Amino acid sequence: MAEAASRTPCGAGEQLNNLSLNDGEDDFVDPWTVSSKSETGIDYDKLIRKFGSQKIDEELLHRFEKVTGKKAHPLLRRGIFFSHRDLQSILNLHEAGKKFYLYTGRGPSSESMHIGHMIPFMFTKWLQDTFQVPLIIQLTDDEKALWRDIKIEDARQMAFNNAKDIIAVGFDPKRTFIFNDLDFIGKCPEFYQNMVRVQKCVTFNQVKGIFGFGDGDVIGKITFPSIEAATAFSTSFPFIFENKIVPCLIPCAVDQDPYFRMTRDVAARLKLPKPSLIHSSFLPALQGVQHKMSASDPNTSIFLSDTPKQIKNKINKYAFSGGQATIEEHRQKGGNTDVDISYKYLTFFLDDDEKLEQIKKDYESGALLTGELKKIAIDTITPILQDYQTRRAKVTDDVMQEFFTLRKLEI
Amino acid sequence: MAEAASRTPCGAGEQLNNLSLNDGEDDFVDPWTVSSKSETGIDYDKLIRKFGSQKIDEELLHRFEKVTGKKAHPLLRRGIFFSHRDLQSILNLHEAGKKFYLYTGRGPSSESMHIGHMIPFMFTKWLQDTFQVPLIIQLTDDEKALWRDIKIEDARQMAFNNAKDIIAVGFDPKRTFIFNDLDFIGKCPEFYQNMVRVQKCVTFNQVKGIFGFGDGDVIGKITFPSIEAATAFSTSFPFIFENKIVPCLIPCAVDQDPYFRMTRDVAARLKLPKPSLIHSSFLPALQGVQHKMSASDPNTSIFLSDTPKQIKNKINKYAFSGGQATIEEHRQKGGNTDVDISYKYLTFFLDDDEKLEQIKKDYESGALLTGELKKIAIDTITPILQDYQTRRAKVTDDVMQEFFTLRKLEI
Repeated sequence: MAEAASRTPCGAGEQLNNLSLNDGEDDFVDPWTVSSKSETGIDYDKLIRKFGSQKIDEELLHRFEKVTGKKAHPLLRRGIFFSHRDLQSILNLHEAGKKFYLYTGRGPSSESMHIGHMIPFMFTKWLQDTFQVPLIIQLTDDEKALWRDIKIEDARQMAFNNAKDIIAVGFDPKRTFIFNDLDFIGKCPEFYQNMVRVQKCVTFNQVKGIFGFGDGDVIGKITFPSIEAATAFSTSFPFIFENKIVPCLIPCAVDQDPYFRMTRDVAARLKLPKPSLIHSSFLPALQGVQHKMSASDPNTSIFLSDTPKQIKNKINKYAFSGGQATIEEHRQKGGNTDVDISYKYLTFFLDDDEKLEQIKKDYESGALLTGELKKIAIDTITPILQDYQTRRAKVTDDVMQEFFTLRKLEI
Repeated sequence: MAEAASRTPCGAGEQLNNLSLNDGEDDFVDPWTVSSKSETGIDYDKLIRKFGSQKIDEELLHRFEKVTGKKAHPLLRRGIFFSHRDLQSILNLHEAGKKFYLYTGRGPSSESMHIGHMIPFMFTKWLQDTFQVPLIIQLTDDEKALWRDIKIEDARQMAFNNAKDIIAVGFDPKRTFIFNDLDFIGKCPEFYQNMVRVQKCVTFNQVKGIFGFGDGDVIGKITFPSIEAATAFSTSFPFIFENKIVPCLIPCAVDQDPYFRMTRDVAARLKLPKPSLIHSSFLPALQGVQHKMSASDPNTSIFLSDTPKQIKNKINKYAFSGGQATIEEHRQKGGNTDVDISYKYLTFFLDDDEKLEQIKKDYESGALLTGELKKIAIDTITPILQDYQTRRAKVTDDVMQEFFTLRKLEI
């Protein structure tokens, strides 16, 4: 599958091959498509081997907890953030009292965000609180305009709407800068200059290999990866970092890894630190673990704007069940937590490990029925979304403006 | 030779074929290379046929003079600006009392500019004075960083140095905005937004066909044409045009035509006015009409910073002569003004048509000797450069800053 780049001006570094998991088998993962035909969803261990990243193992988790003095976040200790690149070097920095920054982002969409979109942001907020470091959130509205039939003006508006949804996750305005490409690139010469530095290191052959671009693709798509790359270099943000070189940690869904594998290769060439990464798996669609939630199909996901009644109806009606056909059969054989969506959602949203373990035991033994499990999921997710919605109501244009203002952050 | 684009999202418009004049014959013209093996230099009539532009004929010249109420500039009436696209529509606008703007530019170089570089700027200044319209001058320092082994910082510095040379041509600061890409793109979101609009309309296949890019080229080169294109749309400069759609006339050396043929095609798609063009031929190198002056070989050209002594020595030593081997032979057969460089330079720099005609007659008859013709050329060019140098000495950093400031212009 991997098509090696035939000419690269970049020196040493990782091989810039096609990183999409698409070997004619069950799974497909690239920045634009995620799907699995397997009953148990994407095989993330296989993805780690294909992408050449590292698994987050017990030893790393232990070191994480030791260095931060905090219990690892449920999303981390349950393996939902399952893979990384160079996370150790970030822990080393923190241990040595040195700073890094966090970078995550989103390609904005017209609809309200769903709970699947919230996962990397929830985790990023926890990282920000834990490490007390600056966070930069990039909204790639230019990407949306280039990939879809969306006007520049509409893409920008989508970015602003999505920004409010993201801010409501609870980021600290003293440490968080949010920008959309279509406005920010025109406000910061150093960012554009880093884009050009990256663009000088990457050939069409390479982006063809990494992202699958073809000769018929528009030139904006072909250069776009340089824009996600530039954000991983602190010198792109002189108003925050005063031209100091500060390392970067990128929490993101694993489908974004190709951008940052390219970025790490370019960093070596530019003599800048390679960004570290921490990768999440995907919250499956209500319909089952084979699917990623889709913002364009309202019945595949629970939206951040859904009412308690909508949440209840969606989980009861659509959440794929690992239970048996009849109560009698269920009591006898038990349910399958590997495919049950209500249970999966609890692994993402229920903090209490003991309670989760008990639910798993009870469901697998048949003591807990599907309807009862769905109720626990509903009762867990509903208050989280209600709290979220309370915060969301307070995100005015002024609040948003604060996050978008080019300014110093607390470092 | 023409490689048609296989997929284009652009609608109606000119065919985006390879526009370089390179059919295995004598001439080669594209934005990076200009050369001719012919004794009389580039065949500009053939170039017009290949590029599909229009020749500036007597009728158009007559209309130009009628509409402006001014005698055409020597560079125009002598056919040095020899070709155009849609110049009529600019004349129509002017006749109707409507405004347009001028756009020209330069890829900065490390050395002092030479007199060949000055030609489009001298003519542009005359257009600005004649039509009393705003002028935008783009310095593509990003292009230089992408194409050559030049650092971002050094490319910017070259742009600033070149800007001072350009300003000294005598542009009106009330009507002239100068920018370098590496700073300006990071200061004007609307410019970047227009870049993305262009990037969405042009495929890799198209830039491959137009500019000869290949799979091994870096992605920065592949997108670069969108940056020259964006400057041809008034909405890229809201601080000047307040988002009004104002047509554009681009005076440029003919090797830049491929960029603007692409731009005209994109304009149709974006429902913006196609820029009009007026193309100049090249001032030949001292060594003869087969060559374009080269800023990197000091003996091929007269630099704007040359002293009277250097000008005299260069013309006497290097200017290719159309004269005969001996005085006797010259008196008998006469000289050849088609290849004589001193005479060519006079067609660019001597305003007086009658005097020029007399020189031609005398040289061709043998009445005027090569040494005498060289002296006329020296005596014509030296005071022009001395005046220029006097103006150049007055271009301080503050003066330069005025031209670079984002501001309203007199329209």
